[in-house]
Amino acid sequence: MHTVRFRDPAGSVREGEWHGDSVSFGGATYDIDDVDVLPPSEPTKIVCVGRNYADHAAEMDNEIPDRPLLFLKPPNTLSAHGDTVTLPAGKDRLDHEAEIAVVIGEAARNVDAADAMDHVAGFTCLNDLSNRDDQRRETNWVRGKAFDNAAPMGPVLATPDEVPDDADIELRVNGETRQSSSRDHLAFDVPTLIEEITTYMTLEPGDVIATGTPGGVGPLEDGDTVEVELAGVGTLEHDVRIPE
Amino acid sequence: MHTVRFRDPAGSVREGEWHGDSVSFGGATYDIDDVDVLPPSEPTKIVCVGRNYADHAAEMDNEIPDRPLLFLKPPNTLSAHGDTVTLPAGKDRLDHEAEIAVVIGEAARNVDAADAMDHVAGFTCLNDLSNRDDQRRETNWVRGKAFDNAAPMGPVLATPDEVPDDADIELRVNGETRQSSSRDHLAFDVPTLIEEITTYMTLEPGDVIATGTPGGVGPLEDGDTVEVELAGVGTLEHDVRIPE
Repeated sequence: MHTVRFRDPAGSVREGEWHGDSVSFGGATYDIDDVDVLPPSEPTKIVCVGRNYADHAAEMDNEIPDRPLLFLKPPNTLSAHGDTVTLPAGKDRLDHEAEIAVVIGEAARNVDAADAMDHVAGFTCLNDLSNRDDQRRETNWVRGKAFDNAAPMGPVLATPDEVPDDADIELRVNGETRQSSSRDHLAFDVPTLIEEITTYMTLEPGDVIATGTPGGVGPLEDGDTVEVELAGVGTLEHDVRIPE
Repeated sequence: MHTVRFRDPAGSVREGEWHGDSVSFGGATYDIDDVDVLPPSEPTKIVCVGRNYADHAAEMDNEIPDRPLLFLKPPNTLSAHGDTVTLPAGKDRLDHEAEIAVVIGEAARNVDAADAMDHVAGFTCLNDLSNRDDQRRETNWVRGKAFDNAAPMGPVLATPDEVPDDADIELRVNGETRQSSSRDHLAFDVPTLIEEITTYMTLEPGDVIATGTPGGVGPLEDGDTVEVELAGVGTLEHDVRIPE
């Protein structure tokens, strides 16, 4: 099933069904252009994973680490399908990073990998937008990764049965494919990530794990349109604005 | 004025006045032992600053950086006056770090230092608890700094007029002084931090800036009682538990 959070034409925030060109809730169906699509959950935190595909680690002159490289995106980084994300003023290099995002359903702490999927509500698409100018100069990636709206996410939450173990993930810029990989190329798989993260912290319902990006990351230009497509979920689309 | 968030004996969460041995709201006064003191705000994120006192930078073999070193503690790190914080299982080295915490009153983005204090609700005490075993092995300090309850905070929110520019900050373990400094030793002062952080992200009402720790950090033992005292605010007290 595909669920979507949206603001209806009367201004109410609803969680309903996604039909591609339309959304529905409570017996009413709305054209997609008549609603504001919202991020599919309301995370208290997004826990992100770095260097989780061999080809991306290599293109950044790194190796897959011996345990997952974790970093954080707070709620200010949220943005949704159809939004325009603006890079902070005075920065030049905004990179795209297509990611498979896991949305937590049931709170999780000290969870074994074998039980981890019981805590997953489903999957969505995420673009881990990265301000490389600052990221390369930081000990912790805060200016680089946690600027406002740096995590476009959506358009829907797809239940785990919808997303196969080898689901393809692809990112396109203005229609041209830049990243293409699949879920079975994750160095640390979803259950392993949940076990590792919940050793240290509680994942709350709605929290998100951004599982890392495959090879092919690169810079965006002002006005570009980005699409992140994940098999079983659909396509997240957003624009970017890089001020002069 | 000193405000305190607490759960009253009937289970309602209230924001009231702090009188040291008692708290009051709506004409009722409760003995401090009859309520649960809560963190003085509900942040969506705690933005932390590293290496912001010369003596602490030196003791860690670092220098003051040319711009603030930022890292993040998500809402799962919250804990309150009177709580017991437990280190994740299998870890040994839990360090205390006394900090002056700034609580945001009015949402802030792209704020100049000259206007920054208009966005501050007040100050409180914070202990930036640090799991050094993991922190030293991480690119971003997530296992090291963002484990559950790693940010005891409180006991009250004091308005800015209560906390002088040279307010003393002190940390004691089982009554013995371990850290002692003052607000005027901050390398980057509060307005400068707000200007820098809001260049990248929106600070929401209730969000917290943990402004860094002075020299004297060190390890805690199972069962230790920690006090963080900030002039104009009062004393935050909590215990620590380090499982075998």
